[in-house]
Amino acid sequence: MAGTLPRSPLAPAHFPELPVISGVRFASTAAGVRYAGRDDVMLALLAPGSTVAGVFTRSATRSAPVLDCQEKLRHAGGAEAGAAILVNSGNSNAFTGARGEESVQAICAATALATGLPVERIFTASTGVIGERLPHDRIIAVISDLAATLDEGAIEPAARAIMTTDTFAKGAARTVEIDGRTVSIAGIAKGSGMIAPDMATMLVYIFTDARVGQQRLQALLSDLNERTFNCITVDSDTSTSDSLMLCATGASGVDADESEPFAEALHAVMLDLAHQVVRDGEGASKFVEIRVSGARNDAEARVHGRSIANSPLVKTAIAGEDPNWGRIVMAVGKSGAAADRDRLGIRFGDIPVAENGWVSPGYREETAAAYMKNQELVISVDLGIGDGQAVIWTCDLTHGYIDINADYRS
Amino acid sequence: MAGTLPRSPLAPAHFPELPVISGVRFASTAAGVRYAGRDDVMLALLAPGSTVAGVFTRSATRSAPVLDCQEKLRHAGGAEAGAAILVNSGNSNAFTGARGEESVQAICAATALATGLPVERIFTASTGVIGERLPHDRIIAVISDLAATLDEGAIEPAARAIMTTDTFAKGAARTVEIDGRTVSIAGIAKGSGMIAPDMATMLVYIFTDARVGQQRLQALLSDLNERTFNCITVDSDTSTSDSLMLCATGASGVDADESEPFAEALHAVMLDLAHQVVRDGEGASKFVEIRVSGARNDAEARVHGRSIANSPLVKTAIAGEDPNWGRIVMAVGKSGAAADRDRLGIRFGDIPVAENGWVSPGYREETAAAYMKNQELVISVDLGIGDGQAVIWTCDLTHGYIDINADYRS
Repeated sequence: MAGTLPRSPLAPAHFPELPVISGVRFASTAAGVRYAGRDDVMLALLAPGSTVAGVFTRSATRSAPVLDCQEKLRHAGGAEAGAAILVNSGNSNAFTGARGEESVQAICAATALATGLPVERIFTASTGVIGERLPHDRIIAVISDLAATLDEGAIEPAARAIMTTDTFAKGAARTVEIDGRTVSIAGIAKGSGMIAPDMATMLVYIFTDARVGQQRLQALLSDLNERTFNCITVDSDTSTSDSLMLCATGASGVDADESEPFAEALHAVMLDLAHQVVRDGEGASKFVEIRVSGARNDAEARVHGRSIANSPLVKTAIAGEDPNWGRIVMAVGKSGAAADRDRLGIRFGDIPVAENGWVSPGYREETAAAYMKNQELVISVDLGIGDGQAVIWTCDLTHGYIDINADYRS
Repeated sequence: MAGTLPRSPLAPAHFPELPVISGVRFASTAAGVRYAGRDDVMLALLAPGSTVAGVFTRSATRSAPVLDCQEKLRHAGGAEAGAAILVNSGNSNAFTGARGEESVQAICAATALATGLPVERIFTASTGVIGERLPHDRIIAVISDLAATLDEGAIEPAARAIMTTDTFAKGAARTVEIDGRTVSIAGIAKGSGMIAPDMATMLVYIFTDARVGQQRLQALLSDLNERTFNCITVDSDTSTSDSLMLCATGASGVDADESEPFAEALHAVMLDLAHQVVRDGEGASKFVEIRVSGARNDAEARVHGRSIANSPLVKTAIAGEDPNWGRIVMAVGKSGAAADRDRLGIRFGDIPVAENGWVSPGYREETAAAYMKNQELVISVDLGIGDGQAVIWTCDLTHGYIDINADYRS
């Protein structure tokens, strides 16, 4: 499956130039886990002193690597030793019972041996088919080669090695000045559905040479995740393997614990990567921003936004370039959060569509229909009953999604 | 749109023979609300003494007729006068502001005049496009004709008059012996999506000649609704107009308040109609029963069942005849209800697929793939952690759904 899909029409023109993050080196290779003729394993090695934070899927059936990472981050000591991240694509090692944990332990032990790190500082992820035993011997066989070929400039091949049904590699970066010195942040991501054809999930790895304490790093990541990756949806389905990790090497010597510009730059990198995941949504032909305001509170604004973004009828209307605002009314009504029919306002871009419980005076369907032909759409919904706000990003639901998920067996 | 879709491959061979329900008469006609060349208004007139119960959408943006019915049923007196139900298709009178209420009042007043009933005993429903003013004058113009042509045998034309994107008319009936006397129940329904191309919803009207007190009638309807119509889903989208009404004329002279066989027969009629709505699900090619057992409680079993039934990835796998059990694991994991990966068991029909946290020993993909070619499928999921049970019915997600909802403008 991987590599056979045409590049998403919403993809950026090319992979961005990413700055070198001092203190982290990458290597990738082909271990033949499932795919032939492409890299499918990547190793990132973090220098001594690197702090690591993580956010993971809340699925009750999450994968063995996710459970292992969560357990290790619960203790979260050992930054002085450094850390390593090892990721394979092609097999998610999810729903593989006790054998799944055996595979994780075997890979972590081999990576610890090759890197000289304690096993507690080895973090792994697997993405791909669910329920098949991970052939971890193939991965272990390449680990010493990976450790011998680490290169601080090799982040783009690492981004390619973790792809499954992605149609483009995803990277983003920002630099920020703190006290007159430059700090860099670079991240990579994969994902083209919350979970995709038997294989796929969202994996995100972000690196910075700033120095950030472990607790602050975790708090920052958890907080920004709520406003970035937790605000996107392709198909409402949640992966068993979603993993987001943030690593701070401190190699710049710049302390960013208290830096607001650093937090803003990190937010920008996370948002950029989150948007790229939506832009590679399975079958996507439109990138859609749902802006919700006037809800009873922010949490209810998000409930409304998700209800709109996940509605098959809203998503198919967008695919059909149909300004079908009645379906937005339906999605608000069914969300379970508070709404007042007669205070609800809807806009497509700058076009007032509905207000005061009915269609806007002067609304012309031709105008709205012309707007819907854009590749990037903004749908604004004002509940008119409070100050709650949220923004959710999604894509449309097209024949391409059915093609990818029903017509082909991965 | 209506009438242009091919008959669902899951449709029954023909409309069933429905028994006459003494005490209720029907009439239908073409008022030209939106469709040309077909009936689009139906009137059902209930004899004096008839009790009426109803269950309606919980949408926060529900339609004017729904709000009016709910208000009238809150008082629920007046059975001695009888009652009338007037339904139009083509326009849902939803999100039409104060004008929506004006239309309902005008229609109720005209129906009261034509039937001699008090306005409090006139119940209406509208199904079709959202957000367009209902041309109620066209409906009012035919009401006296309707009242003049009432016929107790005319239930099938009534079932046809309320269709929108339905590909077949839906009816079901049962008779039951109580104390040696026969009581009949007959019902009609429309619906082919929780909400469909700008127009459609679920409307259900059930009639019986049993005598059932108002409170008992409402309690019975609300209870059985939880196990029938509230257990089906086509696309997870909830209509602004869903209405389910049950009317007991008492004309048989048989008191069914305490009758368990009556409750069972009513359950059978409701389940039959609910299944027919799923069988007419937009684009459906498979009828799927999701049986959940072993959940912490019944409510959580239903949460798991809905998560599976609404998952686009599960529904597309079924469309592709792909025994993709990893997606069932994913849907259980994301549902939010309790699950233990290592106690989860999955079966397709009688085929054990997964158990003890992994694929079942002896599972052969070819066997499961052959099963998935059936038009009717049973997917059983046992959580292994409690006694909670639920059954949910759904259909697959096909190119046909995208065709109906994106490619054509209704």
